[in-house]
Amino acid sequence: MLALTILGNNSALPAFGRNPTSQVLQTNSELYLIDCGEGTQLQMSKFKIKRSKIRHIFISHLHGDHYFGLIGLLTSMGLTNRREDIHLHGPGRLKEIIQLQLEVADTHLPYTIYYHPLGDEGIIADTNSITVQSFKVHHRIECWGFIFREKKNKRSIDPGKVKAYEIPALFYEQLQKGMDYINKKGTIIPNEEVTIEGPAAKSYAYCADTIYHDDLAEKIKGVDMLYHETTYLHDLAERAASRFHSTTKQAGEIAKKGQVKKLLIGHFSSKYELLHEFLSETSMIFANTELALEGTCYKI
Amino acid sequence: MLALTILGNNSALPAFGRNPTSQVLQTNSELYLIDCGEGTQLQMSKFKIKRSKIRHIFISHLHGDHYFGLIGLLTSMGLTNRREDIHLHGPGRLKEIIQLQLEVADTHLPYTIYYHPLGDEGIIADTNSITVQSFKVHHRIECWGFIFREKKNKRSIDPGKVKAYEIPALFYEQLQKGMDYINKKGTIIPNEEVTIEGPAAKSYAYCADTIYHDDLAEKIKGVDMLYHETTYLHDLAERAASRFHSTTKQAGEIAKKGQVKKLLIGHFSSKYELLHEFLSETSMIFANTELALEGTCYKI
Repeated sequence: MLALTILGNNSALPAFGRNPTSQVLQTNSELYLIDCGEGTQLQMSKFKIKRSKIRHIFISHLHGDHYFGLIGLLTSMGLTNRREDIHLHGPGRLKEIIQLQLEVADTHLPYTIYYHPLGDEGIIADTNSITVQSFKVHHRIECWGFIFREKKNKRSIDPGKVKAYEIPALFYEQLQKGMDYINKKGTIIPNEEVTIEGPAAKSYAYCADTIYHDDLAEKIKGVDMLYHETTYLHDLAERAASRFHSTTKQAGEIAKKGQVKKLLIGHFSSKYELLHEFLSETSMIFANTELALEGTCYKI
Repeated sequence: MLALTILGNNSALPAFGRNPTSQVLQTNSELYLIDCGEGTQLQMSKFKIKRSKIRHIFISHLHGDHYFGLIGLLTSMGLTNRREDIHLHGPGRLKEIIQLQLEVADTHLPYTIYYHPLGDEGIIADTNSITVQSFKVHHRIECWGFIFREKKNKRSIDPGKVKAYEIPALFYEQLQKGMDYINKKGTIIPNEEVTIEGPAAKSYAYCADTIYHDDLAEKIKGVDMLYHETTYLHDLAERAASRFHSTTKQAGEIAKKGQVKKLLIGHFSSKYELLHEFLSETSMIFANTELALEGTCYKI
């Protein structure tokens, strides 16, 4: 199970009650924070996101609307006496910024931050439940996207069958991993006979700030849900390009070419109070589109 | 006229809807920002504070709850194409922090930041309407207080009298400055005859995070309004001291010994949901006390 909660869906300037970019991806057991604009810790309180469950934080790039809330969050984690490590994945100079601010405050966090600078594209995290892969997007400064892929889910036990074959409960974990059972008489009970396929492993791709570029479709190919920025409506395609951002129709194109199952759009410019045109324009290109709305949880 | 609006009144951790420290002092013509915790720019929007009117920003110290919102505010001022200079008064290393974050983002602000590192105690700003004086307070790291003093207000014209003495309107400005008028016959009309004393010049002292220390009473002697932190109720005096903070009664003592006219208290610890005991405890020592409440404007 993957589920994504939007904490901030606006671009650079906070406006109309919308906050700068931040998202939380939830697996069965963990929370993964993606970008962390100013006020993210307040949004987390508002939407009851437990910061103690976060072990990995991913920062796409060093424009402030994607990370100015990070130092406050890390400091608050310290003040509430967190002990668990934090793994921080982001552009290399993020470490310098965080360490400088901790140093001048004479702050000694009660937990360890492991800095993982982004370099080559590839797997950057591999946890019990997911793998995370980085890929380059095309912005004014170094900027990254991330693909989160659930690991293969365990097979489910068929309660009637295991009873009928008198399989002891101690062996259930091995059954879930796909092993056959051999009973006292030496008879092989095939795994498929007593288990059923687990839920399909899901995938989520996060495309941070980027100009439209065909290669992204290849990189995010076939994911279950794609988040792609749509800073501007399509009539401002020229402005979008000059600022290394994308429009509604361009996000739709990437989703279509990438054959993803669902598209989520966000990073709306502060010039727009209403968002309905973002949805209608994008849906014309890719039907299964939704607006990324703050506080909303999208099941993947 | 001086008036103070509270944007954040909480200590380190945001809690119960309370934000980290920030205040705006308003004179007749300008706004002065004092400290700038995370989310200050959002609080400014909420309470209709015009950031374009700010020319001077004062940062007491480099604990995050007093400045993590600054980089976001400065960036937003740039995005809205501000042209007027900003004068930034704070501990010396603030410049390094701001410049580093602008540099990694490849951000070139359309306005100039003048950094004024705090060093010796004394006058650090002198504008048309006020002077600002810095003084050291006693915290875990270098920390400053600020006294804002209105300049002597102009005398007011007595409309009946200037008419009676046939004084031309062109001379009014000089009258307001205190000059006598000599009429065509060479008769001296004394200034006091045709003008009345302007409103008294007011003063405001901001005592940022500090342990209780007698010398502060001397430093803020006689101001019209004193803001003093009260992180804890008095039963936690020991904890307050160990963390270089003050209690209710200690703030009251400084106000009493300093013979100020009014005391405003804030920087409440996140452990307190309700604040009424802060008021009752402090008022026992110094009667004219008010709680610093977010969004409230205190006329001085």
